[in-house]
Amino acid sequence: MPAEDLGPAEDLGPAEDLGPADEVGPAGLPLGEYALLDVDRRRRTGVPEAVFGEGKTAAQIFALLAELRAHDPAAPALATRCGPAVLDAAAGRFPGDEVRVDDVAGTVTVGPLPPARGRVLILTAGTTDLRVARECAATLAVLGAGASLLADVGVAGIGRLLARLGELRSADCVVVAAGMDGALPSVVAGLVSAPVIGLPTSVGYGVAAGGLAAAATMLASCSPGLAVVNIDNGFGAAVHAAKIIRVGARD
Amino acid sequence: MPAEDLGPAEDLGPAEDLGPADEVGPAGLPLGEYALLDVDRRRRTGVPEAVFGEGKTAAQIFALLAELRAHDPAAPALATRCGPAVLDAAAGRFPGDEVRVDDVAGTVTVGPLPPARGRVLILTAGTTDLRVARECAATLAVLGAGASLLADVGVAGIGRLLARLGELRSADCVVVAAGMDGALPSVVAGLVSAPVIGLPTSVGYGVAAGGLAAAATMLASCSPGLAVVNIDNGFGAAVHAAKIIRVGARD
Amino acid sequence: MPAEDLGPAEDLGPAEDLGPADEVGPAGLPLGEYALLDVDRRRRTGVPEAVFGEGKTAAQIFALLAELRAHDPAAPALATRCGPAVLDAAAGRFPGDEVRVDDVAGTVTVGPLPPARGRVLILTAGTTDLRVARECAATLAVLGAGASLLADVGVAGIGRLLARLGELRSADCVVVAAGMDGALPSVVAGLVSAPVIGLPTSVGYGVAAGGLAAAATMLASCSPGLAVVNIDNGFGAAVHAAKIIRVGARD
Amino acid sequence: MPAEDLGPAEDLGPAEDLGPADEVGPAGLPLGEYALLDVDRRRRTGVPEAVFGEGKTAAQIFALLAELRAHDPAAPALATRCGPAVLDAAAGRFPGDEVRVDDVAGTVTVGPLPPARGRVLILTAGTTDLRVARECAATLAVLGAGASLLADVGVAGIGRLLARLGELRSADCVVVAAGMDGALPSVVAGLVSAPVIGLPTSVGYGVAAGGLAAAATMLASCSPGLAVVNIDNGFGAAVHAAKIIRVGARD
Amino acid sequence: MPAEDLGPAEDLGPAEDLGPADEVGPAGLPLGEYALLDVDRRRRTGVPEAVFGEGKTAAQIFALLAELRAHDPAAPALATRCGPAVLDAAAGRFPGDEVRVDDVAGTVTVGPLPPARGRVLILTAGTTDLRVARECAATLAVLGAGASLLADVGVAGIGRLLARLGELRSADCVVVAAGMDGALPSVVAGLVSAPVIGLPTSVGYGVAAGGLAAAATMLASCSPGLAVVNIDNGFGAAVHAAKIIRVGARD
Amino acid sequence: MPAEDLGPAEDLGPAEDLGPADEVGPAGLPLGEYALLDVDRRRRTGVPEAVFGEGKTAAQIFALLAELRAHDPAAPALATRCGPAVLDAAAGRFPGDEVRVDDVAGTVTVGPLPPARGRVLILTAGTTDLRVARECAATLAVLGAGASLLADVGVAGIGRLLARLGELRSADCVVVAAGMDGALPSVVAGLVSAPVIGLPTSVGYGVAAGGLAAAATMLASCSPGLAVVNIDNGFGAAVHAAKIIRVGARD
Amino acid sequence: MPAEDLGPAEDLGPAEDLGPADEVGPAGLPLGEYALLDVDRRRRTGVPEAVFGEGKTAAQIFALLAELRAHDPAAPALATRCGPAVLDAAAGRFPGDEVRVDDVAGTVTVGPLPPARGRVLILTAGTTDLRVARECAATLAVLGAGASLLADVGVAGIGRLLARLGELRSADCVVVAAGMDGALPSVVAGLVSAPVIGLPTSVGYGVAAGGLAAAATMLASCSPGLAVVNIDNGFGAAVHAAKIIRVGARD
Amino acid sequence: MPAEDLGPAEDLGPAEDLGPADEVGPAGLPLGEYALLDVDRRRRTGVPEAVFGEGKTAAQIFALLAELRAHDPAAPALATRCGPAVLDAAAGRFPGDEVRVDDVAGTVTVGPLPPARGRVLILTAGTTDLRVARECAATLAVLGAGASLLADVGVAGIGRLLARLGELRSADCVVVAAGMDGALPSVVAGLVSAPVIGLPTSVGYGVAAGGLAAAATMLASCSPGLAVVNIDNGFGAAVHAAKIIRVGARD
Repeated sequence: MPAEDLGPAEDLGPAEDLGPADEVGPAGLPLGEYALLDVDRRRRTGVPEAVFGEGKTAAQIFALLAELRAHDPAAPALATRCGPAVLDAAAGRFPGDEVRVDDVAGTVTVGPLPPARGRVLILTAGTTDLRVARECAATLAVLGAGASLLADVGVAGIGRLLARLGELRSADCVVVAAGMDGALPSVVAGLVSAPVIGLPTSVGYGVAAGGLAAAATMLASCSPGLAVVNIDNGFGAAVHAAKIIRVGARD
Repeated sequence: MPAEDLGPAEDLGPAEDLGPADEVGPAGLPLGEYALLDVDRRRRTGVPEAVFGEGKTAAQIFALLAELRAHDPAAPALATRCGPAVLDAAAGRFPGDEVRVDDVAGTVTVGPLPPARGRVLILTAGTTDLRVARECAATLAVLGAGASLLADVGVAGIGRLLARLGELRSADCVVVAAGMDGALPSVVAGLVSAPVIGLPTSVGYGVAAGGLAAAATMLASCSPGLAVVNIDNGFGAAVHAAKIIRVGARD
Repeated sequence: MPAEDLGPAEDLGPAEDLGPADEVGPAGLPLGEYALLDVDRRRRTGVPEAVFGEGKTAAQIFALLAELRAHDPAAPALATRCGPAVLDAAAGRFPGDEVRVDDVAGTVTVGPLPPARGRVLILTAGTTDLRVARECAATLAVLGAGASLLADVGVAGIGRLLARLGELRSADCVVVAAGMDGALPSVVAGLVSAPVIGLPTSVGYGVAAGGLAAAATMLASCSPGLAVVNIDNGFGAAVHAAKIIRVGARD
Repeated sequence: MPAEDLGPAEDLGPAEDLGPADEVGPAGLPLGEYALLDVDRRRRTGVPEAVFGEGKTAAQIFALLAELRAHDPAAPALATRCGPAVLDAAAGRFPGDEVRVDDVAGTVTVGPLPPARGRVLILTAGTTDLRVARECAATLAVLGAGASLLADVGVAGIGRLLARLGELRSADCVVVAAGMDGALPSVVAGLVSAPVIGLPTSVGYGVAAGGLAAAATMLASCSPGLAVVNIDNGFGAAVHAAKIIRVGARD
Repeated sequence: MPAEDLGPAEDLGPAEDLGPADEVGPAGLPLGEYALLDVDRRRRTGVPEAVFGEGKTAAQIFALLAELRAHDPAAPALATRCGPAVLDAAAGRFPGDEVRVDDVAGTVTVGPLPPARGRVLILTAGTTDLRVARECAATLAVLGAGASLLADVGVAGIGRLLARLGELRSADCVVVAAGMDGALPSVVAGLVSAPVIGLPTSVGYGVAAGGLAAAATMLASCSPGLAVVNIDNGFGAAVHAAKIIRVGARD
Repeated sequence: MPAEDLGPAEDLGPAEDLGPADEVGPAGLPLGEYALLDVDRRRRTGVPEAVFGEGKTAAQIFALLAELRAHDPAAPALATRCGPAVLDAAAGRFPGDEVRVDDVAGTVTVGPLPPARGRVLILTAGTTDLRVARECAATLAVLGAGASLLADVGVAGIGRLLARLGELRSADCVVVAAGMDGALPSVVAGLVSAPVIGLPTSVGYGVAAGGLAAAATMLASCSPGLAVVNIDNGFGAAVHAAKIIRVGARD
Repeated sequence: MPAEDLGPAEDLGPAEDLGPADEVGPAGLPLGEYALLDVDRRRRTGVPEAVFGEGKTAAQIFALLAELRAHDPAAPALATRCGPAVLDAAAGRFPGDEVRVDDVAGTVTVGPLPPARGRVLILTAGTTDLRVARECAATLAVLGAGASLLADVGVAGIGRLLARLGELRSADCVVVAAGMDGALPSVVAGLVSAPVIGLPTSVGYGVAAGGLAAAATMLASCSPGLAVVNIDNGFGAAVHAAKIIRVGARD
Repeated sequence: MPAEDLGPAEDLGPAEDLGPADEVGPAGLPLGEYALLDVDRRRRTGVPEAVFGEGKTAAQIFALLAELRAHDPAAPALATRCGPAVLDAAAGRFPGDEVRVDDVAGTVTVGPLPPARGRVLILTAGTTDLRVARECAATLAVLGAGASLLADVGVAGIGRLLARLGELRSADCVVVAAGMDGALPSVVAGLVSAPVIGLPTSVGYGVAAGGLAAAATMLASCSPGLAVVNIDNGFGAAVHAAKIIRVGARD
């Protein structure tokens, strides 16, 4: 196996020497010193790197988005978990490029979206799961997968779900976001033939705090064919769903 | 089974299409786009939807309360876990309607209360359990169940409880709120013939932090006949208690 | 409050002195030395003591059953969690008395059952929850509550449940036994007006092993009015349900 | 939505009455009394019910397999987690029918397999993950998905994996079974464009005992597009994978 | 057993009726409505009630201290876990009474201290354990037990402890406060004949965060004779120690 | 600090060399090769070493008991957690010495007991806590502390405890063994002035399995002055109690 | 980076096809079908593969040992966690080769040991930690590192450790095996300048059961320079220690 | 063993008496009253005490640094986990001494660094692990070990790591910092012959929150020779690595 197969292993020069001398001075590190953008990722996995905005400054997020756009102009660049300052400023930072901001999801998308293929249906059990669900939707758009969202159809009023059975059954893939008891994905997986992805959220309190109870419920589901991603990981659910859509589009 | 039996599954139109286009724009979603009020819930379960105020703005809470009032004028509307801003403003927001605010519980009730039936006794082990206990009381009032509250009768001074044995034994149902060791419900369940509901609270520190220790104590109780709700879930304890009272009122 | 109100505090003589002398000799303790039968419990709480059979020998179980029968001839005596040896031998051990053995539940009941009042419906999500569900049924019979059982209606095939909606809605109280994801009680609590008791079972593997995931799901339920008992505690669910039935029968 | 859409809700008669009478007699329940075979599941979800053999007797397993075969002759019937007694006896129990036994997986398949479509590649990190991986393979065969298995390519010797990069990249879907640190799926998901399913196993000791550490590693993966099933749930991983393959085959 | 033996069960009147009417109005509850001061506790257990300051306002804390002083003038009143506002204002709030404030411990003591008997030695593993250790010291003073404190003698430099072996061995009781690994109490319990009390603290990060690791270490100690209190519970450690000193002073 | 103060640091010769040669041959290690009996412990802490029988053969247990007897003829030697084989054979293994066997506790005591001083009262919540409670009693006898045991006074029938209040209050120290909810020690600590030791047991199932819930309840107790030992550690509770008695006997 | 650098990626032929046909027949898989021996590991990491015996039959273990011997005659082959059957039979299974069996450790070593370099000192807190400590010693011998073992020097009798301070300080590396409270490594790491490896063991009960408490104690250690391996992982501790010794031997 | 061997046990006078008198007055404790600087630590273990800055004021940190510098002028003094105020002010606080500040790591170093020996390579899986990795680097510099840092080479793009294989293999010791899945150290440990230290970080969310998942992954690693330190403990990883380098430098 030639190494190139793993992507252009561009030499970044010798590792930063932090030895006994005073290079470990005041920070303000340039991009190259702390990040090795995995620019080959899209070639290998079909999914470009995205910017995880939590804990990053607006300047860092915009710099990384620009870097991604510059490196791969054919693909839109996405930043998730952005705070209000980033969301408000984003529209004006990329003149000449298309910018989409979702204030509920906390996402910024830069660059034209690819055409949408397939039908991913995103459900939420409650309204507070919407942030995560819309992060999922924004990511699917970036990856070229068609997405619809149906909110607040949790099992406490199962009729709301059953009333939409037709839509459910026409989807190629279903993502179900749920916090609290995390029960909705189990019900859905028993009703449709498409692959179902459980997306636990941190919505809840008491024994549900943090989302571990919802995640466990989904992993323990008695409905076969349900697979689960990390708590609040709308991005990851979208990537798995988009990869599924591509399997369908392969032939 | 006809679908109508599950309630009027009103068609909300096709699911929101979030596909490749730019609908995923700036937020400020109207109510209809993120919530499917389960307006049929009271018919099915006897319990109307309530507004869980945590994480919602005052505007959202008041809008949802108004929606509930409009949809079902015969029942009062309840919001729980409201912050000071909501509690302070509530009185002036529903002119012509009755408004009750409990600053300790963090609840807002809009509309005339139904007549109270039955006797639910709410106990607390300590004074800091009072917020949750009063949320329970406010919910019982909305559901038409009679409620009394006896605070600070924890097991560290068991005489305080034994001095009230008569009251305990005359209740139709007893709700016991306790944090820390969560021991009080076990003692109570061994003293009365009414159903006892354990209501663990997040009061405590160290191994008791968050209320999991109290919840485990109650579930593990050596006193049979004790059933438990989620930590700090005064609302849920009240719903279970009110349903019990209705069994008594059925015949 | 006179002490008698707590029941006849019969003096058992001075506590067993285990001091420096050799009384701590070989075991084979008579009943009186290690158990204080709470014979007054039925008067206080309406629920007589029962024998928890796990870890006890057949001889001990039969002795305790006989003791209970002798002390309170008006009430049947119940032993739960009995092994095959006890179940096989039980029929022949109480000549002249009625004996009921449930091999699936692992219960032995001695003495005539009281007349059944009310309608408790017990549901199970899967077939392996049946042991716990039938322990619940046997206990309800002892307590004079009417019980029906509907097995294997888990959410993976929600149609099985919806087909029985009429039965569900005619019950005074519903007990829902579920292991694995523990999702069924949430769905049920959203469909009926009766109080619902979640009975988590230890059925499951992986993240569901031991039943903690199912218990958390039920406590975290988004359906209000659901209360929960300990994992595999069919006995406790029955006591809570029977107490509810009595509230209904009080008037 | 007419109820029939949920499948033929065949009336099973009134729920078993366990009330005060002596029906709760000695066990030996016939099939109909404790199981509601979800015979409509294949129509709804494309996946027929299977028999989870753990905790069931050989007689029960064979009866359930026969029931499934009789109900749906067009589909093979599968039993998982069978012990040696079942595995040894299976071959002789279904005269005139095709029987496949996998002693490593603990599976029994009865009936002719459907033609295989697509390419699912199953990897294992170690040799002890093989039981679960082969349960996955046997299930895929039943569901008509093509499967290959490559064992013992864990990250401690990453070269073993990299040497098979071509095979990895030609799969439509990759299932990665790993216990201990559960690190392999993260590496794989960063190398291929197909959807990757993490299958944590209970292989390991100390902090890895029971598989929770491996499951957490996979959920927390820094490689997007990885979805996870319950610990040791080879069956569930196969169902999710087969559903993915069908998306590909739909068009 | 006459009820009086449990203390003067003063009748507080009928439980507050919160029923359907509007008593559940705006808060600002007077003391009597939410607290049943266990004023008989000192007679029963030798330990008066204290005020747990966390989550209480300065006004509430001062009111409770005054109440305790008024009810039992012979004993000093103690408030623990007080914030800076309370600590700063305390000195001026009880004119004519003795006031002691420990800014490190966060305690306020009002009233003259009883004479000190016995020798309790308090050790800390690190300097950050000092807050909890001094809460313990302040409580011991209130309870009339003599206390000394030796800080920062953790096991990372065991020589610091061994240099003080004489002091250790002359104590009647030793309290050992430790966070992080919680190892110090095990070493101490192997060196002295006095009872040793482990006082885990929440000092630490990573696996030690919150103090659970330290608490587990102490409970699991291989040194017999070590007993443990809740994390950060300097008050509780002091009460157990003071009760031990009284056993010594009994004769 | 001279090293001798830590006890006679007898040189055991160079550490066993296990290097490249074949000394690591077949086992059957003599005592000296794997155990450094801490024969000085009684001088330092007042408590002699005891034999923890779990996982040891009868031969090993008897050898260690003989070693302890030989080294310190003035003190009895104790083995805990012995299986039936050891308990049955013990009486005949120490001719000329006094042997006490407690079949319930699983303890063997060899040698004359010291005179008993003080009054330790051991309570149990249920009958299954008796094994641990009697291990505590046997250890107290070895340490020269007077002990009484009162079984089965759990909080489900609180009257059983209150009927014995006089005995409770006359004890110098109270040990309370409880599994399940672990609530009894909190009640007791609120009733007596003596130090109370919580002894959690592994009795219970579901959330109580293993005893962690009971241990957490006791640590989180709202009754001050309660200190806790490890689950099922009757030996450790006894050592702490005996040290307390000695404080009382010191003067 | 040429792929060869990762070791000879020998082609094993196409992945086993398990598709729709009946290859998934009865088991008894030959070695090649389920294991990819990482025969290049010693060249890459200096540590040859070893056989983890748990869950393997004697036949499998002996076959794997023979395979390892055949592939790399210059290095001894090691099997760990072998049961009595394997330990008893091992001596006779490799005629003409050197065989070492450690019955306590459960290890079998085949082939001549390399000369021992450096000084690794292995300590145990108790005698029951010996199995793990000797597995560590046997592994060190295979890796050519000199090892000594000093058992039973836990912190309950700290004098036993201090008496051996000279030996401790002359070691190049110290491995400290401890269960229960896991406190010993913290004390040792504060006394020596050599790297210290914490080796938690599963010895203990209650909160210490399984070794998680000991592992947490070691990770949370206040003594810097302590690194930790998995519970009971004597093999892993030895590999880390041997690698350290080689750093010393490099120059 | 003479006590001096444990370091100069300087007498600090009698322990602070906090008894009944009013010494427990307002705080503002001088250094000597709450800290026993383990000034002998460097002689015993080769590693001087460092200042853990979290929770300390700038004044305290600078005072402790000055104290360390004054006591041991031959060694630089280090403070970790310093906030912005400390980092900004540090340069001007030690006139005439060398001061190094690392704003990313949050470290302050005072005094000339020793010459660097050996080659420690620090890797990070992601960019957010950089704070911990640079704390490790700063500590290594203080301890005289040569360090290089290579950031953002996580397993999601394994090619980034493989491209640097030469550097990896030339290191004497490798520290691998990783949050989220914590998978990188396992891969590295399978590629190099040097000792590898796993440094879990708290980077992550959902099941990875707090770093426990990463720590478990590393402890459970299937790659032998990996040892682990506490979450975010860059300081501890550096001390273990520096001790390893010294073993290499010993001869």
